[in-house]
Amino acid sequence: MEGHVPEPTFTLEGWHVLHDFRRLDFPRWRKASPEERREAWEGLRGLLGAWGQVEAEGRGSFGVYQVVTQKADLLFLNLREGLDELLELEAALNRSLFAQYLLPAYGFYSVVELGSQEKPLDPEAPYVKPRLTPRVPKSGYVCFYPMNKRRQGQDNWYLLPAKERAGLMRAHGETGRKYQGKVLQVISGAQGLDDWEWGVDLFSEDPIQFKKIVYEMRFDEVSARYGEFGPFFVGKYLDEEALARFLGVS
Amino acid sequence: MEGHVPEPTFTLEGWHVLHDFRRLDFPRWRKASPEERREAWEGLRGLLGAWGQVEAEGRGSFGVYQVVTQKADLLFLNLREGLDELLELEAALNRSLFAQYLLPAYGFYSVVELGSQEKPLDPEAPYVKPRLTPRVPKSGYVCFYPMNKRRQGQDNWYLLPAKERAGLMRAHGETGRKYQGKVLQVISGAQGLDDWEWGVDLFSEDPIQFKKIVYEMRFDEVSARYGEFGPFFVGKYLDEEALARFLGVS
Amino acid sequence: MEGHVPEPTFTLEGWHVLHDFRRLDFPRWRKASPEERREAWEGLRGLLGAWGQVEAEGRGSFGVYQVVTQKADLLFLNLREGLDELLELEAALNRSLFAQYLLPAYGFYSVVELGSQEKPLDPEAPYVKPRLTPRVPKSGYVCFYPMNKRRQGQDNWYLLPAKERAGLMRAHGETGRKYQGKVLQVISGAQGLDDWEWGVDLFSEDPIQFKKIVYEMRFDEVSARYGEFGPFFVGKYLDEEALARFLGVS
Amino acid sequence: MEGHVPEPTFTLEGWHVLHDFRRLDFPRWRKASPEERREAWEGLRGLLGAWGQVEAEGRGSFGVYQVVTQKADLLFLNLREGLDELLELEAALNRSLFAQYLLPAYGFYSVVELGSQEKPLDPEAPYVKPRLTPRVPKSGYVCFYPMNKRRQGQDNWYLLPAKERAGLMRAHGETGRKYQGKVLQVISGAQGLDDWEWGVDLFSEDPIQFKKIVYEMRFDEVSARYGEFGPFFVGKYLDEEALARFLGVS
Amino acid sequence: MEGHVPEPTFTLEGWHVLHDFRRLDFPRWRKASPEERREAWEGLRGLLGAWGQVEAEGRGSFGVYQVVTQKADLLFLNLREGLDELLELEAALNRSLFAQYLLPAYGFYSVVELGSQEKPLDPEAPYVKPRLTPRVPKSGYVCFYPMNKRRQGQDNWYLLPAKERAGLMRAHGETGRKYQGKVLQVISGAQGLDDWEWGVDLFSEDPIQFKKIVYEMRFDEVSARYGEFGPFFVGKYLDEEALARFLGVS
Repeated sequence: MEGHVPEPTFTLEGWHVLHDFRRLDFPRWRKASPEERREAWEGLRGLLGAWGQVEAEGRGSFGVYQVVTQKADLLFLNLREGLDELLELEAALNRSLFAQYLLPAYGFYSVVELGSQEKPLDPEAPYVKPRLTPRVPKSGYVCFYPMNKRRQGQDNWYLLPAKERAGLMRAHGETGRKYQGKVLQVISGAQGLDDWEWGVDLFSEDPIQFKKIVYEMRFDEVSARYGEFGPFFVGKYLDEEALARFLGVS
Repeated sequence: MEGHVPEPTFTLEGWHVLHDFRRLDFPRWRKASPEERREAWEGLRGLLGAWGQVEAEGRGSFGVYQVVTQKADLLFLNLREGLDELLELEAALNRSLFAQYLLPAYGFYSVVELGSQEKPLDPEAPYVKPRLTPRVPKSGYVCFYPMNKRRQGQDNWYLLPAKERAGLMRAHGETGRKYQGKVLQVISGAQGLDDWEWGVDLFSEDPIQFKKIVYEMRFDEVSARYGEFGPFFVGKYLDEEALARFLGVS
Repeated sequence: MEGHVPEPTFTLEGWHVLHDFRRLDFPRWRKASPEERREAWEGLRGLLGAWGQVEAEGRGSFGVYQVVTQKADLLFLNLREGLDELLELEAALNRSLFAQYLLPAYGFYSVVELGSQEKPLDPEAPYVKPRLTPRVPKSGYVCFYPMNKRRQGQDNWYLLPAKERAGLMRAHGETGRKYQGKVLQVISGAQGLDDWEWGVDLFSEDPIQFKKIVYEMRFDEVSARYGEFGPFFVGKYLDEEALARFLGVS
Repeated sequence: MEGHVPEPTFTLEGWHVLHDFRRLDFPRWRKASPEERREAWEGLRGLLGAWGQVEAEGRGSFGVYQVVTQKADLLFLNLREGLDELLELEAALNRSLFAQYLLPAYGFYSVVELGSQEKPLDPEAPYVKPRLTPRVPKSGYVCFYPMNKRRQGQDNWYLLPAKERAGLMRAHGETGRKYQGKVLQVISGAQGLDDWEWGVDLFSEDPIQFKKIVYEMRFDEVSARYGEFGPFFVGKYLDEEALARFLGVS
Repeated sequence: MEGHVPEPTFTLEGWHVLHDFRRLDFPRWRKASPEERREAWEGLRGLLGAWGQVEAEGRGSFGVYQVVTQKADLLFLNLREGLDELLELEAALNRSLFAQYLLPAYGFYSVVELGSQEKPLDPEAPYVKPRLTPRVPKSGYVCFYPMNKRRQGQDNWYLLPAKERAGLMRAHGETGRKYQGKVLQVISGAQGLDDWEWGVDLFSEDPIQFKKIVYEMRFDEVSARYGEFGPFFVGKYLDEEALARFLGVS
């Protein structure tokens, strides 16, 4: 009994994900000369172009978001085939002229995962592969939050029998399915990679759906009893034109 | 029983709300030349005018407050029909000359909600619609705080039967009603939108009423057992003239 | 039983209190020219003079303290008849030249209260009124800390029967009375006003008494089981001459 | 039973203690001219000389330490007969030219105490007095950490019978005695004085002893069940010559 | 029973470890002239050369890593025979020109340990010594996190019988052994040395292994019930050439 290791769930890993939240240093950005702003913007456009090229080649995906409240102003969301690619693009952003006008806010490194509490999955199956390599929607809104499964007194997720965990996740999945077509969910695992165990991205054309799905799911026993939630970030997708407008360089 | 999903409450959503708390960089504001201060003030007046226009057209509401203690100096409170409008006004404030003299403090994004634990509400009913699109009082004081419902050991709100939740909320509502005419309450939901599950705004002509209502409500079982409270912010309403006096530009 | 509202205690409110803790930016203060320091000092003396005038007229009280450790260097403690007066004096301090040399540390807004768990009090009674409008001692030391009553599992203050709460508070009061003549206690309520439920000020001619009374009271069941304590600040009273010496402008 | 006040332990107070942890602003220190560095160093030497004089006169003790990791670079540890002396030396350090190159890190104010759970102690006894006025070793290493006694659910130190507390402390003392000659312990109380209830200083010629004693003591029931520990700071004693080498002014 | 001291485990100490995480101040680094960057780089290369010399002489080991997310940009990981050597290299880094472009992030001081819950180990044994003086791999990735053993209510590691602790650790070790050849684990103790009780370094050629091993181990009872985890940092090994590329000085 002591130190028992129940069979872990069957988990497939997909793309590596970097959530890179930044604040824009508005006072410094405002004071920059038109030439500096133009040059910074051109550098940023270059990065966006490169990211778009990667996406076009099926080697990743990305989105830029305007984030509400002072937690952050911009989210640079990138998915890639490996950590090396994320490290390179993070460094490229940091080295850019535009980064001179950014302040740190929050970051999260995780890997898209598709878990089954019941049986192994075929990574090449048509209902599996696209979910391991998801494409960021090119419109609408994002809601991102990190989370843990609780291990506290009687409420210890990791000490539950696998079968009970499977049952709880199945019920949770049913709540999620009610939002099909309204909310796209991407789950990424961060155990051993970042301070929380999972990252959750919700994508929707209507931010009220974030409120509805999170509220309804909170009544699922798996959330009510075992969910611990970190900060929530909500942002609006910005294509290049909208980003230029946000930055006042259009 | 496992993963049970009790019927959620019936909730209507109204206006989107942005609480934008800032500190004023007094040393820099003091050092600014009279022309710079005048120009910054005119820019801020322009924003206030635009917000007032939106309110006049019934598409939102707003208030500016002087906040006590070092947590913040100013609160820009805005309600709008959607997130897009909030993102635009937040960006407009950040891009303004006046923002050069502001420092970040705290922000909260939520959506006005009217919940019923018992039956669906008609969003157009005369006792419903005004509560979903509340007008910020143009005098007095505000008290804002975010909160969660507890999920801890035996005290887990989300595992209670719907009927018990309804009973607890009803008793809580009765305490609130004792303050009718003294305290106006606006509840906004933030699940999936911000770090706490709800935001609470209390408006009153007398700040002692904040102390009295919060103290009395703390004895309601729903607060005593299930309430978790974030930071509290108290501020005094500033009309344009009072704001000018606060800033020393009148 | 559900949502029960036990009769709350009988509470009288007195003066509004602002604890305004600041760090002194010693490097900038050192670099200021003698003229700048002199001008900043004269401005600060003007504020102190105004505060003293208010105290002389019985409309408030104040004290300035040198605070030990890096948490803060100075405490500006002010009591007034209402929040408006506190907001005005906070803004006046912030707008002063001296504030250019201050850094934020901690602040707390509360209202002096006199509670009875048993029966209503007469606010004009001779043993009541002075305790609602206390005068800050003009020598010695201050210890300030904010606190909550616990609501955790079995230890939930707000779910206790009123009679049990009264008994616990009475025993606590007896411990306090042992320090009569050695320690003056001022309790202010902050529910609905700040992040903690109460603020406690202890005044004494000997800082060891802070250690003794807090240690002894910790064994009172009301503290041992229900007390949650925030940061502790200890400072030494500075009259104008001592403040000038501290600032090197005497 | 309600609100019972068990007899508190017999506690004697000795010297007042200020732990003043600072980071050195290496970039600014590096950029200072040789003259500025020399002048700052001479000012610091002046303070060290004054502190040494106090120690020579038996009115206090002190030590300066190089602290490992980014938490802090320097610890200025001072013991004095009262709070006034600590406030004066803290202000003198802050006003010094050298302080222009320091950044805040952490501070703690406490008073050396010698407690007995069983019987009163004679403050003048030969095995008592030196422990109330300890001399900081002039070599080796220091480990400092603040701590609380837990008050949580079933594990509530302050609700234990005095006899049980005495038994637990006695066993703890026995573990400590095994390290006699290897580790010198100085316990100071901070209830009513700082955010934690006690401060612990361990002094040793070998930092591995800090690891061994803290590890072994963690198995004492008094630590395992009732100990809550704050940040740990480890530093190496610097005499004037070593400090000059550290600062690059020798 | 009271204050019982169960026999502690048999623990051997090896090299002292400093994890020194820094952010790179990209804006300032970008603005530095080519000469300044070159000079800073040469200084840093000098330090790397010295560290390599120590490693060549068997007196320590080191690695430099590019860290993902905004938590940090660089990790300087050093192992040495004692604390003095770590203090010296930390100071040397801080005094370097390159440190002018670094910002603080996180640090951790610990000592490599090899514990046995059952019997004493021979520090010179061939399967012991290399594990007490581990060589940092010169390729791949690192995952670092600090952790505690829980002492909370029923889940109190330090109150378990030694035999039960031994059983739990044995099972945990078996999970670890499944990753032999894929993940190298280095455990260092930090009790009495830093804010967490242990530091864990995982080294692997594939960062997905960090996710897999931490996830699987979380189901071991010793982690599920007794593990408390701090922040996780993941980085990629940089040899001198890769570091030059990262810094744009190659």
